[in-house]
Amino acid sequence: MHRRHLQFLLYDVLQADDLAHWPRFSEHSRDTFNAVLDLAHDLAVDTFLPHNRKADLNEPRFEDGRVILIPEVKQALDAYVKAGFMSAMADSDQGGMQLPFLIDSAASASFSAANVSTFAYPLLAKGVANLLSAHGTAEQQRLYRDPIIAGRFYGTMCLSEPQAGSSLGDLRTRAVRQPEGHYLLEGAKMWISGGEHDLGENIIHLVLARLPDAPAGVRGISLFLVPKFHVHDDGSLGERNDVQLAGVNHKMGYRGTVNTFLKFGEQGRCTGYLVGRENEGLANMFHMMNEARIGVGLGATMLGYAGYLHSLQYARERTQGRHPDQKNPDAPPVPLIEHADIRRMLLQQKTWTEGAQALALYGARLVDEKAHAPEEKIRQDATLLLDFLTPIIKAWPSEWCLRANEQAIQILGGYGYTREYPVEQFYRDNRLNPIHEGTNGIQAMDLLGRKAMMQGGAALALLAQRITATLDMLRDNPRLQPLAVEMQDYLRLAGDTTALLGQTLARGEVRLGLANASHYLTLIGHLCVGWMWLKQAQVASEKHPRASDTDADFLEGKILACEFFFRHELPIIRHSAALLKSLDDTTLKTTSAHL
Amino acid sequence: MHRRHLQFLLYDVLQADDLAHWPRFSEHSRDTFNAVLDLAHDLAVDTFLPHNRKADLNEPRFEDGRVILIPEVKQALDAYVKAGFMSAMADSDQGGMQLPFLIDSAASASFSAANVSTFAYPLLAKGVANLLSAHGTAEQQRLYRDPIIAGRFYGTMCLSEPQAGSSLGDLRTRAVRQPEGHYLLEGAKMWISGGEHDLGENIIHLVLARLPDAPAGVRGISLFLVPKFHVHDDGSLGERNDVQLAGVNHKMGYRGTVNTFLKFGEQGRCTGYLVGRENEGLANMFHMMNEARIGVGLGATMLGYAGYLHSLQYARERTQGRHPDQKNPDAPPVPLIEHADIRRMLLQQKTWTEGAQALALYGARLVDEKAHAPEEKIRQDATLLLDFLTPIIKAWPSEWCLRANEQAIQILGGYGYTREYPVEQFYRDNRLNPIHEGTNGIQAMDLLGRKAMMQGGAALALLAQRITATLDMLRDNPRLQPLAVEMQDYLRLAGDTTALLGQTLARGEVRLGLANASHYLTLIGHLCVGWMWLKQAQVASEKHPRASDTDADFLEGKILACEFFFRHELPIIRHSAALLKSLDDTTLKTTSAHL
Repeated sequence: MHRRHLQFLLYDVLQADDLAHWPRFSEHSRDTFNAVLDLAHDLAVDTFLPHNRKADLNEPRFEDGRVILIPEVKQALDAYVKAGFMSAMADSDQGGMQLPFLIDSAASASFSAANVSTFAYPLLAKGVANLLSAHGTAEQQRLYRDPIIAGRFYGTMCLSEPQAGSSLGDLRTRAVRQPEGHYLLEGAKMWISGGEHDLGENIIHLVLARLPDAPAGVRGISLFLVPKFHVHDDGSLGERNDVQLAGVNHKMGYRGTVNTFLKFGEQGRCTGYLVGRENEGLANMFHMMNEARIGVGLGATMLGYAGYLHSLQYARERTQGRHPDQKNPDAPPVPLIEHADIRRMLLQQKTWTEGAQALALYGARLVDEKAHAPEEKIRQDATLLLDFLTPIIKAWPSEWCLRANEQAIQILGGYGYTREYPVEQFYRDNRLNPIHEGTNGIQAMDLLGRKAMMQGGAALALLAQRITATLDMLRDNPRLQPLAVEMQDYLRLAGDTTALLGQTLARGEVRLGLANASHYLTLIGHLCVGWMWLKQAQVASEKHPRASDTDADFLEGKILACEFFFRHELPIIRHSAALLKSLDDTTLKTTSAHL
Repeated sequence: MHRRHLQFLLYDVLQADDLAHWPRFSEHSRDTFNAVLDLAHDLAVDTFLPHNRKADLNEPRFEDGRVILIPEVKQALDAYVKAGFMSAMADSDQGGMQLPFLIDSAASASFSAANVSTFAYPLLAKGVANLLSAHGTAEQQRLYRDPIIAGRFYGTMCLSEPQAGSSLGDLRTRAVRQPEGHYLLEGAKMWISGGEHDLGENIIHLVLARLPDAPAGVRGISLFLVPKFHVHDDGSLGERNDVQLAGVNHKMGYRGTVNTFLKFGEQGRCTGYLVGRENEGLANMFHMMNEARIGVGLGATMLGYAGYLHSLQYARERTQGRHPDQKNPDAPPVPLIEHADIRRMLLQQKTWTEGAQALALYGARLVDEKAHAPEEKIRQDATLLLDFLTPIIKAWPSEWCLRANEQAIQILGGYGYTREYPVEQFYRDNRLNPIHEGTNGIQAMDLLGRKAMMQGGAALALLAQRITATLDMLRDNPRLQPLAVEMQDYLRLAGDTTALLGQTLARGEVRLGLANASHYLTLIGHLCVGWMWLKQAQVASEKHPRASDTDADFLEGKILACEFFFRHELPIIRHSAALLKSLDDTTLKTTSAHL
């Protein structure tokens, strides 16, 4: 099931074969991609999945300044490193597989579905390595990045502080330049995943901090590399740097990923190294954040998808009740999946999670296009579209695939609410995703206030072009043409709404224009996922007459799911658009005293 | 805050003073009602609230066939009994307070908000006592009910079995009549809350079972009273009955309420006593279930409301970020509540939870009207309307107030996701409510297939009459009149949709007619909660000009919340109605092979 769907998405919908024709990936082919994906799937099932519940029940302990994890985490990660996944995207001449981000992401999907908490460690480490590849000096790459790629070091992102979560402009960690060229850091960082553990030899913290003379706000933030252990020039490890584990946060879910409160420079000797230029730290960090956001979206999606597959299996096996038109009480009970309302919950899960997967992997392909497509026009378009889609890819799945987990529990009923079944853990784990890597509220402001407005609305125009290209392909498709017409209408609504909000913002009515940004994210998010469903249905519809029996069911399922999404889910676009166009100011008028 | 809102609901919106004029409650007045409510609030805060987290962290343990609870649970319940709440609704001459169910429910709201798990024990016990009052023999009332009212015994409802959850017609527990008049029971019951503990001297299980010659399905179910310890005729306790604790379920939330797997008659000596008549057990049990469903709805509401109040306080105190039109990074950060998107999440929580509270308490008032209103017409109308509203009161809050808890976590951000703050527990606790006491899917089928169709649609017609009466009061209200017009339109949509579905069912297309029942529940649920908001806004609007400054803010807040609900939430009715009217059959066409 999962393999068929992934193959369909990658090769039929997202044309992943194309990438093997680009110089960067010319050593690859569909066969090598599939070998990697199969390996990821097997490794995920064999080494990540078995300790998913155990890690939840035995959360990391804080003892004498150390963090104790269950041993299975390190065993799984060692296997992950050994199989080459830590260096999957690295250059061949550095020992990497030089894979596209798209294939790496598709491989990641298996690990996220199997054990999202354990997988957080390599995901963070790879993010740090990518950032150092883009912005680090040759020496930083040699001393800190290469050991990450080799699986010896891990990494963290240190942005938030106890008083400054979403508001990075208010962070207070200070960095003072020393005559030798390095900096001394002092400050406290909160919510640091993977901030302390013994999974590797070292941890490379990427830390946002302010220079003493930095301008206030986000324009005065610099990025520093702070190793847990000093690294000598020959690569050997020295003494511990002045980074103290001050506490471990106890969470509702994602318990296997240790989340820490770190203090830098309590003893005045926390050494950090500038990455990139002074006061440009936030932009550089966002290079990592943007890929992290796709990772968050895909992780949320895969938790939702894992719940879908579990509840689907349960609904097929468990018998309960009869059809409402069955009057004979002696008739045997039917499988749960026979009930319309159970199918509704399965179709909701399917359309939310498979639609979100398509979108997240589409975004992953754009990352490859941006970096490696041979034609400049494709690189430029990918850059524009990716900027626009990133907040959607982060926020939409983290909202709707969480809802998918809610439905998976519902299908299992009382059993789903117990810790004997995995779905309740997926739900708790997934609840983190609307919060971290920029809350969904912030993603909505970013999407409407910045991304939709950049370059005179060029990104939405480009998106509309691409959606229209899909609609054009459906002109002679009697079954899907009515959906294409609806989509045309939604597209028009999205355009009108964006234009009206753009005028409001341009008039300087910034608070009014952004007041209902969350509805804008729903509007555009549903539009994008609806497009992904039309793309899938279009491909399925073309292949259908030529398909074998089993495949015909699979493809017909894609078309039915598309129809379900259009009938049951997509119409809320109209509500969001109407609300946005009314420039409703109820939230502005309602003050604290009214609540 | 809470007190003001509750007073407003009870006396201004629900006219609770009326009840004190009825013979049954003639010893009461607003003063005695308020004394009870204040006592409940103080007791909830002093004895229930302090161990809410402790009970979550130390779930009941199963040791040598016994269940060990933390001692605070018994301390709280003893105080609850001592204060007279176990007998709040009982007759004065039995030592009760003879209070209306409405006031008892409003008192329960405080206990649910403080500690829903501990409160489950007395709630169940009271349900058992009420059922025995309605259907038990004089002897059963004397031996089993009176000790419950006195706080000495507790009780359970034993419906589900491992193979039969929602499908009660398939239950297999058998009861064989003995020459002495009692029955011997044999079978296994799953998901039994409070199935074993030492909180009182005894536990009275109400058990659904089948006689050997009973007809198949739901028409062959009888109800039995099975005491944990036998009770002699003088009220003293005898030996243990043959009820074995076979296991304890480990849940995601509601952890303080022990949930058990019980085996009846493993040694062939489980004595039970018939309650009511043979084969009429389900109808009698539903007497208890219906009040339990109002209890579930109110409990879900109060968990949502508790989360709302916590996140409101946090949003007032925590500073983060600036307004989007603030360009000066040196400006101090503002409280979270200043951000429009935070206010959206607060207004969603407020409208869902205060709206649901109004509806649940309206239902509680109908319980009183049905049983004790002096005029027969009022009793008849209340019976009809209560039947119709019960599935909504159970299901709507358990869906939307769970969503409120999701938003409370979001406002607290990373902190909300930790176990240092209570909101994540509310979310886990509340996730049970869409499942138990009849899943929400079953409530939707009950509402559409049975309640909306009974007596030729009389219930919806009566509801429409009452809503129209509210709309008539707004004819000269310039601010609320536009909302009344919208409501009129929604009411028309509800009527049209119900008529069309009724025709479909009448044609015998039962599966098609019921396929989208969940959307019907959303449609009618939103309609009812929208009505509750109009009622609140209407009262607030009348009082407004005469209000003191603080009260003016409170009342204006009610009107703003009503406007918010109409603008942001209620329009999804149109989507649900359109989908229902289209008789969409996608869920019927999508089979297991497509998924």
